Amino acid sequence: MGMVGGGRGAFIGAVHRMAAALDSQIELVCGAFSSDPDRSRLSGQDLFLPSERVYGSYREMITREAALPEGERMDFVSIVTPNHVHYGPAKMALEHGFHVVCDKPLCFSMEEARDLVHTVEETGLLFALTHNYTGYPMVKQARAMIRAGELGTIRKVVVEYPQGWLSTKLEDSDQKQAGWRTDPARSGIAGAMGDIGTHAENLAEYITGLRISELCADLTAFVPGRRLDDDGNILLRFDNGAKGILHASQISAGEENDLNIRVYGEKGGFHWRQMEPNTLVVKWLDRPVEIRRTGVGELYPESQAHTRIPAGHPEGYLEAFANIYRNVAYCLQARLRGEEPDPLYLDFPTVHDGLRGMQFIETVVRSSESDEKWTKM
Amino acid sequence: MGMVGGGRGAFIGAVHRMAAALDSQIELVCGAFSSDPDRSRLSGQDLFLPSERVYGSYREMITREAALPEGERMDFVSIVTPNHVHYGPAKMALEHGFHVVCDKPLCFSMEEARDLVHTVEETGLLFALTHNYTGYPMVKQARAMIRAGELGTIRKVVVEYPQGWLSTKLEDSDQKQAGWRTDPARSGIAGAMGDIGTHAENLAEYITGLRISELCADLTAFVPGRRLDDDGNILLRFDNGAKGILHASQISAGEENDLNIRVYGEKGGFHWRQMEPNTLVVKWLDRPVEIRRTGVGELYPESQAHTRIPAGHPEGYLEAFANIYRNVAYCLQARLRGEEPDPLYLDFPTVHDGLRGMQFIETVVRSSESDEKWTKM
Amino acid sequence: MGMVGGGRGAFIGAVHRMAAALDSQIELVCGAFSSDPDRSRLSGQDLFLPSERVYGSYREMITREAALPEGERMDFVSIVTPNHVHYGPAKMALEHGFHVVCDKPLCFSMEEARDLVHTVEETGLLFALTHNYTGYPMVKQARAMIRAGELGTIRKVVVEYPQGWLSTKLEDSDQKQAGWRTDPARSGIAGAMGDIGTHAENLAEYITGLRISELCADLTAFVPGRRLDDDGNILLRFDNGAKGILHASQISAGEENDLNIRVYGEKGGFHWRQMEPNTLVVKWLDRPVEIRRTGVGELYPESQAHTRIPAGHPEGYLEAFANIYRNVAYCLQARLRGEEPDPLYLDFPTVHDGLRGMQFIETVVRSSESDEKWTKM
Amino acid sequence: MGMVGGGRGAFIGAVHRMAAALDSQIELVCGAFSSDPDRSRLSGQDLFLPSERVYGSYREMITREAALPEGERMDFVSIVTPNHVHYGPAKMALEHGFHVVCDKPLCFSMEEARDLVHTVEETGLLFALTHNYTGYPMVKQARAMIRAGELGTIRKVVVEYPQGWLSTKLEDSDQKQAGWRTDPARSGIAGAMGDIGTHAENLAEYITGLRISELCADLTAFVPGRRLDDDGNILLRFDNGAKGILHASQISAGEENDLNIRVYGEKGGFHWRQMEPNTLVVKWLDRPVEIRRTGVGELYPESQAHTRIPAGHPEGYLEAFANIYRNVAYCLQARLRGEEPDPLYLDFPTVHDGLRGMQFIETVVRSSESDEKWTKM
Repeated sequence: MGMVGGGRGAFIGAVHRMAAALDSQIELVCGAFSSDPDRSRLSGQDLFLPSERVYGSYREMITREAALPEGERMDFVSIVTPNHVHYGPAKMALEHGFHVVCDKPLCFSMEEARDLVHTVEETGLLFALTHNYTGYPMVKQARAMIRAGELGTIRKVVVEYPQGWLSTKLEDSDQKQAGWRTDPARSGIAGAMGDIGTHAENLAEYITGLRISELCADLTAFVPGRRLDDDGNILLRFDNGAKGILHASQISAGEENDLNIRVYGEKGGFHWRQMEPNTLVVKWLDRPVEIRRTGVGELYPESQAHTRIPAGHPEGYLEAFANIYRNVAYCLQARLRGEEPDPLYLDFPTVHDGLRGMQFIETVVRSSESDEKWTKM
Repeated sequence: MGMVGGGRGAFIGAVHRMAAALDSQIELVCGAFSSDPDRSRLSGQDLFLPSERVYGSYREMITREAALPEGERMDFVSIVTPNHVHYGPAKMALEHGFHVVCDKPLCFSMEEARDLVHTVEETGLLFALTHNYTGYPMVKQARAMIRAGELGTIRKVVVEYPQGWLSTKLEDSDQKQAGWRTDPARSGIAGAMGDIGTHAENLAEYITGLRISELCADLTAFVPGRRLDDDGNILLRFDNGAKGILHASQISAGEENDLNIRVYGEKGGFHWRQMEPNTLVVKWLDRPVEIRRTGVGELYPESQAHTRIPAGHPEGYLEAFANIYRNVAYCLQARLRGEEPDPLYLDFPTVHDGLRGMQFIETVVRSSESDEKWTKM
Repeated sequence: MGMVGGGRGAFIGAVHRMAAALDSQIELVCGAFSSDPDRSRLSGQDLFLPSERVYGSYREMITREAALPEGERMDFVSIVTPNHVHYGPAKMALEHGFHVVCDKPLCFSMEEARDLVHTVEETGLLFALTHNYTGYPMVKQARAMIRAGELGTIRKVVVEYPQGWLSTKLEDSDQKQAGWRTDPARSGIAGAMGDIGTHAENLAEYITGLRISELCADLTAFVPGRRLDDDGNILLRFDNGAKGILHASQISAGEENDLNIRVYGEKGGFHWRQMEPNTLVVKWLDRPVEIRRTGVGELYPESQAHTRIPAGHPEGYLEAFANIYRNVAYCLQARLRGEEPDPLYLDFPTVHDGLRGMQFIETVVRSSESDEKWTKM
Repeated sequence: MGMVGGGRGAFIGAVHRMAAALDSQIELVCGAFSSDPDRSRLSGQDLFLPSERVYGSYREMITREAALPEGERMDFVSIVTPNHVHYGPAKMALEHGFHVVCDKPLCFSMEEARDLVHTVEETGLLFALTHNYTGYPMVKQARAMIRAGELGTIRKVVVEYPQGWLSTKLEDSDQKQAGWRTDPARSGIAGAMGDIGTHAENLAEYITGLRISELCADLTAFVPGRRLDDDGNILLRFDNGAKGILHASQISAGEENDLNIRVYGEKGGFHWRQMEPNTLVVKWLDRPVEIRRTGVGELYPESQAHTRIPAGHPEGYLEAFANIYRNVAYCLQARLRGEEPDPLYLDFPTVHDGLRGMQFIETVVRSSESDEKWTKM
């Protein structure tokens, strides 16, 4: 694996490295950790990389790695830069024959998104998008339950992603995370909706298997002077007639990272919360509420295949994140062996989920500016 | 107290009686418990009432009680009938000089609502509406915190009222509660929104002190053949610029009665849930989450005045309901003594809250049928 | 009902009155509310009692009420005084033909306890002891589950009653509740163990149907200068071979009133907490954890018969307390009609539970002072 | 790192490998994964190890690795075998100059334990024992709070470790984990107490900084035919006069792995639960309950230094486990650089904790067999 971004001081780069390392299936062999070559070099030292494989730019990295003999060069690129620097390295990596793991949202604009989809389809390479929250075992369980029809036809979906960390104008300090996320030039046309709203959208569609068909959005920038939305409330309609609500916020003061989803069908419903991810509360019309737990009792294979440790030992965010990397590794290994990968391991978000997320952002922003009630997605 | 409705087999009548009895301030002295005189008579026997004060209709009751000497006749009427039989007895009671306690929603139509407001204002009598959920001590605490500015300017409100009991077509059975609630002739123009949506609306405006200024609603009758909404999702805008979400549902399969509200201001937020009403989770921008509990530590007088028992002994639904009756009793006693009531006891929902609820129902139904995004309330 | 104790400033007297009033089956007709006749008189006024039925002492009350014609005099006495004033009024009431409801613990010494059992048996009168925590619907459900064998043979019981309110020497202030509870002359040989340990013991034996056969106790008075235990840890052995733990504390700083019990059998276990009394968490060897809730789904008749309101509306401490009073009222009514009471309503703690509690106190204190590991109960 | 044990089918070996890999500070370079050489070889292949460094026995591994040039040979040994195969490889590794990470309990007997302590002291090598539960950030926070005196003098400790997985005679199946844990020849003189009771003991002493001075134990083998205890209840006395309870069980049917601890001091208390490890509920005498969370707000450096990801992203069992490995790696790196390690990283359990655990097992078993109330530890 070669990494683009994630140098000293970055948050998400370290997360990707831990997620990639956890299962000992992936080795970090090179990186272009910063657009500042010195920072990149120092970051490479921190990571015990040989200096000749620490590059000053992603262009240099991709060019030089592509020139290395097979077996020696990196197998895939992991892109952990801010949104506006996703498309460039992703496109170039694909064109040089490298598979890609990319942080979300996919890119900066719909044009970029469509082009990446096209490039992935053309090259036939793997492209994984780290919508990591779908990596949790109990999210897999929830999805499998719905697929198996346990809840009956889905009627209602409530998905929420409240945070409070941008309740003040943090971007005026030197907080790096706040800086780029609230900057249209680096984040795109949406703030909270791009950063976390897309996670909520992805989770809702992943778990239910439904598609949002139209929506009605009300976005707000509550903090004076902020240039992108820090809160959004959205009515949803799904393609099967289900209705729903999505809200995401970075000004819900005091909230940490409370992504959660409730789904109700004809026969029952469930509630899953990211902050206690090993619990799935399942509610039934005709029998008591059940608490399903990671690794406990009979669970669907989709859930079991993404669980590492026995019941009662909590698995966390990094393990869910690692499930994406591990699945990518297993699929690459299967390719190398000329085999079809086990379908259980094909379960990771792809460039198509990325395109979907970009459509969501675009639709939400358009709806919020419109006087019409419903905007099609 | 004389009661209209609440005969054998009714649910809410018994609740009102227990709530009125709890504090030994109110005595049930007469009733017209059913439109069926036999049922009324038997219900009166169950309640140890003398037969001469068990009436065959509310008209009879009001007329004959009004003819009794002062001090002997009932002081006020408690109306616990379905929605379409609120206006009649309320209007007649007021016109005969009786105070009124009335179940919610206030009545059947905006015309009735406006007329009742007018009548109450004209007569100067007390009129309490049993939006009982605002009777909980920790709801009082939450409201007092906001009033005192502890959360700063309010930015976001999320209020929910999910139930699952109407997930099937229960009205086709002989379930009395389901029957009238889904029948436009008895319930009015809204189903879930009238029954429980109004509680959510009342709670949100009560706690925040804000007013909903406009909204965007999407109501649905999910159960085939149902004539009124059994689910609704609503975007809210408040008069101070705050945004919000209200959703209420009777097809959220497996949910009991999970009314809950989250409010976020500039400095912090909180979460209160009716099913664990003695806990208020308070979240802060700059310090740890606090768990405030009924009767524990320093609480606002508004909260303390509505608490009966020491910390750690849960107070429930009946106690909250009883707070309305007790406050009404205290205010009546003050009137009898020619005194101003303690402002703490003036804290119960009135005919104005009832009018507001009717406006909410009317606005929501109108919005749901409209293609325009925002409908003013 | 006539009340002994419970005058102005008392806590538990008001609780008894609310519990007795809730179901409109019992009327407070007289009282001796304080050993101070003036205080008694004023308390009677607060309660709207005619002055001639407010007495200066329990002796006066019992003598004068006994002289009233049947139908006019009180039916039973409710004793809500500190421990050392239980025996006197209880004994005298029984001897004058009055049924008794008495706060716990039963009395002050084993001699008194045995004498009361004897007197109750001789007179054939009803005697209810307000171990109110067994009045909760989900405690009834838990007991019925064990009786029905759902958990298999019981192996382990963990019952806890932590409070923190006596973490400082509150008895040095004028806090009335702290004063008598820490005074051997008024409380007896035990402090925390008599006040709340007996509730834990009663709950454990009630729910499991087992009897503690021997125990090993370690009592402590942590607060310097305190004269009775404020904390105790106890190993339990039950008559069927089950083992267990009981601990009760008034120095568990920050705890409110967290009485809770866990029971484990061969097939499953459960957890019940008084502070969230409408939830019973049931755990199984071979299927998911279930959340059983007051009034939700199929519950045992023992639970349903002690539930007043529909699912999702929390019932609290007063409702559980009222279940004792209501059952006593129903049994008295059956007696008056010459009928056998419905066995569901015979379910309230009696003088025998009181004796058992006194034995528990005596055994625990003896064990704590002993070097022997096990002391028989 | 070289590993002893942990071949195919083992549970804890994989946990150690993930914990060691997470932070990219440790590389697995060799192993003797099974006493069966074929199984060891296949396990090595699974782990991408070169065949020449997959050994048929720990003896072979230690001898051959010691013969490799410095810089090439393993730095330390990780021992993940059942209890009866801890001493042998640990002793031999130390004698050949290798640092050791060893699973708990330390070994099989007090003699072995004392000898290992002696050997570690003599060689001056690092010895880490994987009492992993003390690796959680909020356990570090709790310990730091007590050290800083925030709770005042500690009065009461309640530590519990209930599991239910051995509620039936699982050792009669071919379940490998159950087999050795219930076999005196492989597990030692205690069952549940050795396996999980020692975790509880270690957690209690680690968090409080107190030492258990004497105890009173009641151990039971509930499952017919079981040869070691599957449940134990213990009264504790600490060296500062605090009292406590420890219970551990493998027949608490339906429990997963609910290690938890409550500590109460003069000023406040807290509750920590392993199954929701990122939450520390802190209770105060004089202010509201606080919810402290991993990574949120101001926490002690001891907590922050063991946290990897921002607030609201749950860290789990593997991250806590990895904190031990990472600290060992940091300390080894400091040694290699000739520096003193940062004291924050010296925080991992050592051979002395291991000896303490063995003393605990020995004392508990002795106490359980004794008629005397208190047994000194």
